[in-house]
Amino acid sequence: MNLLSGRDTSAKIKEELAEKVEKLISEGKKRPHLAAVLVGEDGGSLTYVNAKVKACEKIGYKSTLVKLPDTVTQEHLLREINKLNENPDIDGFIVQLPLPDHIDEQVVIESVNPEKDVDGFHPSNVGKMVLNLPTFVSATPQGILELLKRNQVETEGKHCVVIGRSNIVGTPVSILLSRNTNPGNCTVTLAHSRTKNLSDLTRQADIVIVALGKPGFLKGDMVKDGVVVIDVGTTRIKDDSKKNGFRLQGDVNFEEVSPKSSFITPVPGGVGPMTIVSLLMNTLKAAEGKKELT
Amino acid sequence: MNLLSGRDTSAKIKEELAEKVEKLISEGKKRPHLAAVLVGEDGGSLTYVNAKVKACEKIGYKSTLVKLPDTVTQEHLLREINKLNENPDIDGFIVQLPLPDHIDEQVVIESVNPEKDVDGFHPSNVGKMVLNLPTFVSATPQGILELLKRNQVETEGKHCVVIGRSNIVGTPVSILLSRNTNPGNCTVTLAHSRTKNLSDLTRQADIVIVALGKPGFLKGDMVKDGVVVIDVGTTRIKDDSKKNGFRLQGDVNFEEVSPKSSFITPVPGGVGPMTIVSLLMNTLKAAEGKKELT
Repeated sequence: MNLLSGRDTSAKIKEELAEKVEKLISEGKKRPHLAAVLVGEDGGSLTYVNAKVKACEKIGYKSTLVKLPDTVTQEHLLREINKLNENPDIDGFIVQLPLPDHIDEQVVIESVNPEKDVDGFHPSNVGKMVLNLPTFVSATPQGILELLKRNQVETEGKHCVVIGRSNIVGTPVSILLSRNTNPGNCTVTLAHSRTKNLSDLTRQADIVIVALGKPGFLKGDMVKDGVVVIDVGTTRIKDDSKKNGFRLQGDVNFEEVSPKSSFITPVPGGVGPMTIVSLLMNTLKAAEGKKELT
Repeated sequence: MNLLSGRDTSAKIKEELAEKVEKLISEGKKRPHLAAVLVGEDGGSLTYVNAKVKACEKIGYKSTLVKLPDTVTQEHLLREINKLNENPDIDGFIVQLPLPDHIDEQVVIESVNPEKDVDGFHPSNVGKMVLNLPTFVSATPQGILELLKRNQVETEGKHCVVIGRSNIVGTPVSILLSRNTNPGNCTVTLAHSRTKNLSDLTRQADIVIVALGKPGFLKGDMVKDGVVVIDVGTTRIKDDSKKNGFRLQGDVNFEEVSPKSSFITPVPGGVGPMTIVSLLMNTLKAAEGKKELT
């Protein structure tokens, strides 16, 4: 069993990104600049956004946090987004989701200039991903691909079963792995809540990606020996022994599945750290894309 | 064995569309208007475009054919497209592909106003399809879904194996059938040239969709009893006994597979006629969408 450590892989990528930033600066170029828009005070969102801002600073990016109260009107939010669209110093930005109920998330997502949409949520970027055109791929699916690639996990010709069809993980990762690329060229089965005989499918799989948000869902008897397992689940479980009062639990029963696996991601320290680093990679790409235009 | 006749189903839909047009006219609304841009004199393209124009006329749509020589510059073509984008009488239009080598197809596809992109090829429309947002779904995948729906073929919980991952058929139909919609809610496996042990997969499938362009590829021993088979292949085979000198052959060995099938599409007369009718449905949708805005 080999641990697919997102912590180690992302640390390596961050070092590379920091070197690239230094090189940009030494060439007289501007620092990559990521902005994040946070609406309201939701604890989870605040933690995520702070982690993103901190990660930027660590590798030498500029970062800007736009904080708005949860009473902000949609019009006001759209004006703030427009300022970021038009600010030439901002290479890319994200709007942390979820947004309050009185704001139409889809309108907000589509108001972001696709050239600065480093979250890859704009429909035209999703479409370009499907069509295998240059684009920003959203952070979690891209992080999974990068993790497989950097750890030399062979995907070509493998049967990959993806469990969960969400717009931000299951569906895009299933599309990405089925394309004629590396990583890619998998035969991909996309399974979900309506799937019958799921275990029959997962037991045939060379690679299983679980993105359900159901702690411990994938059991030992559901996989074959030598399987590669990617666990996207990160459910917060109350745990008074932890200083923040909870621990993260994945969708995989790690104790049962890991002995049968050739590669497996831990939770925490697997897909999670890869997600933030993907955003940083997209931001550099946005900055360099602009560079090519000048 | 039940024949999934695209000829019959599309005839029924055309009748319904013709009634809707009459109703629009009787309400004092304008006639739906589809334009097609044809570059060059390629025989296949000419046949397809003429069939589309003829289908429009039959159900009472206005149609316009913009014919350009194959020496047309990209700039000229883009200007013609812009005229169609700006012409308020045109509800939707298509640019018949393929285009000559000196023209960048992707630039052309992205120059079409997504609101008039009844072929559903613009990345933002592809992205909206993935995200299950209102959009134009491209003609062949939509035709397949409509054929399943109109013939009450149950898809929920079924395992569907799609063979072929093209941007215009295999990939979108695999995405559409995996969503939480009806038709949809299938467990979908997308197989392609790098897939190993394909027969093991197809023999498990409740639904097999073949979109490879390899005549007779799907054999009787590759499917289980009761399978639903959708044959997207339409390869032209030279045949002097036919008045146009060729016959169309599908990707399915019909003689072997049909006795084991619960439903199967013939070639010709299966998916083909559904493709044109999907374009007509999208054009009406475009016309009605505009109506809602006024």
